[in-house]
Amino acid sequence: MESTRILLEAHEIPTHWYNIAADLPSPPAPPLMADGSVARPEQLGAIFPPAIVEQEMSLERWIEIPHEVREIFRLWRPAPLVRAVRLEEALGTPAKIFFKYEGVSPAGSHKPNSAVPQAYYNREAGIRRLTTETGAGQWGASLALAGQMFGLEVRIYMVRVSYDQKPYRRMMMQTWGAEVFSSPSQMTECGRKILAEMPDTAGSLGIAISEAVEEAAGRADTNYALGSVLNHVVMHQSIIGLEAKKQFDKIGLYPDVVIGPCGGGSSLGGIAFPFLGDKAAGDKRAANLRTVAVEPCSCPSLTKGRYTYDFGDASGFTPMMKMYTLGHDFVPAGIHAGGLRYHGASQHVSQLHAAGLIEAVAVPQLATFDAGVQFARLEGIIPAPESCHAIRVAIDEALKCKETGEEKVILFNLTGHGHFDMTSFERYFSGDLEDYEYPAEEVEKSLAKLPRFG
Amino acid sequence: MESTRILLEAHEIPTHWYNIAADLPSPPAPPLMADGSVARPEQLGAIFPPAIVEQEMSLERWIEIPHEVREIFRLWRPAPLVRAVRLEEALGTPAKIFFKYEGVSPAGSHKPNSAVPQAYYNREAGIRRLTTETGAGQWGASLALAGQMFGLEVRIYMVRVSYDQKPYRRMMMQTWGAEVFSSPSQMTECGRKILAEMPDTAGSLGIAISEAVEEAAGRADTNYALGSVLNHVVMHQSIIGLEAKKQFDKIGLYPDVVIGPCGGGSSLGGIAFPFLGDKAAGDKRAANLRTVAVEPCSCPSLTKGRYTYDFGDASGFTPMMKMYTLGHDFVPAGIHAGGLRYHGASQHVSQLHAAGLIEAVAVPQLATFDAGVQFARLEGIIPAPESCHAIRVAIDEALKCKETGEEKVILFNLTGHGHFDMTSFERYFSGDLEDYEYPAEEVEKSLAKLPRFG
Repeated sequence: MESTRILLEAHEIPTHWYNIAADLPSPPAPPLMADGSVARPEQLGAIFPPAIVEQEMSLERWIEIPHEVREIFRLWRPAPLVRAVRLEEALGTPAKIFFKYEGVSPAGSHKPNSAVPQAYYNREAGIRRLTTETGAGQWGASLALAGQMFGLEVRIYMVRVSYDQKPYRRMMMQTWGAEVFSSPSQMTECGRKILAEMPDTAGSLGIAISEAVEEAAGRADTNYALGSVLNHVVMHQSIIGLEAKKQFDKIGLYPDVVIGPCGGGSSLGGIAFPFLGDKAAGDKRAANLRTVAVEPCSCPSLTKGRYTYDFGDASGFTPMMKMYTLGHDFVPAGIHAGGLRYHGASQHVSQLHAAGLIEAVAVPQLATFDAGVQFARLEGIIPAPESCHAIRVAIDEALKCKETGEEKVILFNLTGHGHFDMTSFERYFSGDLEDYEYPAEEVEKSLAKLPRFG
Repeated sequence: MESTRILLEAHEIPTHWYNIAADLPSPPAPPLMADGSVARPEQLGAIFPPAIVEQEMSLERWIEIPHEVREIFRLWRPAPLVRAVRLEEALGTPAKIFFKYEGVSPAGSHKPNSAVPQAYYNREAGIRRLTTETGAGQWGASLALAGQMFGLEVRIYMVRVSYDQKPYRRMMMQTWGAEVFSSPSQMTECGRKILAEMPDTAGSLGIAISEAVEEAAGRADTNYALGSVLNHVVMHQSIIGLEAKKQFDKIGLYPDVVIGPCGGGSSLGGIAFPFLGDKAAGDKRAANLRTVAVEPCSCPSLTKGRYTYDFGDASGFTPMMKMYTLGHDFVPAGIHAGGLRYHGASQHVSQLHAAGLIEAVAVPQLATFDAGVQFARLEGIIPAPESCHAIRVAIDEALKCKETGEEKVILFNLTGHGHFDMTSFERYFSGDLEDYEYPAEEVEKSLAKLPRFG
């Protein structure tokens, strides 16, 4: 019986993360403060531990994964690389379709890959408590798990509408010992202010970030943790692509196309950057490698945004980063069911896209659920809505191969399972979901308000 | 880095199931009809395909797993055997604790191990449609998945209270293409009758079974599938223990104690019977092997039931089987949160318990959730409430080893994850759950009504 799941042993968990900052075509643009001055490490130090600040700025190609972090990873890693044989057969494609399955983590997604090291470095720095924000709860659940593993208290500000309507992931966070507050909350000054002004607000990720950052900035024993976008987070996710490379080595293959869903950028960067590193190093197998970032038509930062300096958060608290952005006051349409709602894309993903090294495609919502259901019925796994974006493009690429007869090797990142997103599938089946295209003119309106630096 | 997850390759998926009927201390007692006559295979043939009827009666020790079934299994099998190192350290025990993790299946439990072959044999017999009943939905989801894999329509009668209150697994079944009806339904005669008499009924597993069997018996293209209790189901689950044996061989260990949750008996039998087979064959490593069936205090068939002939279903439609039973009209207390609600235990589990070859212990509900939360916070995986029963006893056995200093090897069956049971954990945390002991005198009252044969 031919193996369709390519497995690795615990000792094959990578020992170092890959940092693509070392291989960018030009030096990365520095983060800027709102007055145009370059942001200093100390300004990040108020809410992040020293090791994270260092990683955020680092130009080292390889950064060692601490032993204690790998000890936790081996509870579920290495993650399997799986060949989707039944999907290939159903499509009648000569392409070989592989996916890296990150849904095997206890939290059900790739997010613990960064939550675990972030919790570790904070504990090493003497921090006792972490705060964060969460929407549907994928990141909050992962930080709850990671905090529990290293004995840290975790406080999660969960967007009110999700807190009320998506209780399962909240219960999961509580099972791992985290405290979860409906945001806006009475716990913070900004939460109290917003509640006084808008008692019936549904909350937003922007408000929840403000609450989590306020608490972390105000207490010496407390730091803040972010689940995507920042350089260190994307680098932590490189473990996905590094494992996939080892797995392809075992079967003597190398991908022609690497596909990832793209919101903040850590799932795309996580699977693709190690292969782009091969390309930068002149590896012949990677000479014609294509990398495709898949984003929703309703949040099309790479395909419709502008490459410019913008704030990382909705309120303009953070330094500005040079990235593809829809404007930091972008609000995703209510009809959009999945994640991938961030207004920008990570700096490195943005820079590589600007340099023509990463393709980007925006896909309409219904087509992603079509693909996700087709996948679930053939391969079993019910994918998270974010992962459905990558599946859509993997199927489209495989169908192109059917036309051309090319036997391409396609790799995509199956970032998580959809067990906590079943209501989105129900909305899809009952016809409640629609396609929505974000209007390009909104981007111009939003960006016109910004200071211009780059 | 020492491996704590012992993995197998796809080609190591067992090629044969183990049938303990060949190794029982005495021939199994035959199923009887209500009039005391021995049930004939044709009577099962109305709702089961020939291969399943044959397996149900078979005394062959090894039965080949069809190639097509193994092809589906390799989407997620072999399942990992995991050493719970962090749990051992937290307990300070010299024991080695291992679990076989069946939550890796797309449905999240061990149930597809039988759903897949049942769907296969039905398709081979020319059947186009399967019916079944489901409570919380673990079995229904597994049959939906399996039916989809072999192109069969699946109709699931889901107990009304679960249909209304546990929508996530219903959505999962629908994602895999199954039709799900709230039971009692308008689809069947017995459903319509009950609705007319009791329009506000919450439904019950007994009613749902009656609906599923009625539809299957009345249509030539339709069969019925059951998720536990019957001999063929328990045998299909032997793949769990057979894989575990190969995994222990790789690390040169053998379990001293094998522990499984016990409702109908397929998860206990699935992990334990292959080791009991070694014992029957005189394998010295198994000479002192202990097998422990863990049941809830609120449904204590092995510890408080009587070993006698009783009906398999609540309504008395099925043949009678000789088994430990609380009486077929047993109704689990509303306070009981998990599965393991069946009134009896599989014939082979019952016979082995009666012969002193399987120990049984009943555990109170709160202690199982205590154990499950402790496990989740150390090992990451949030276990299903059923699995928490096995974890409770594994921890208790490990604590005994701490007192005696024995370095025992403990193996338990982690039958599934708790992603769809988070409301039970919330009830536990909020103090809504209580312990409940089923009163022994109820058993006598219920059994007094039965015809007596053995």
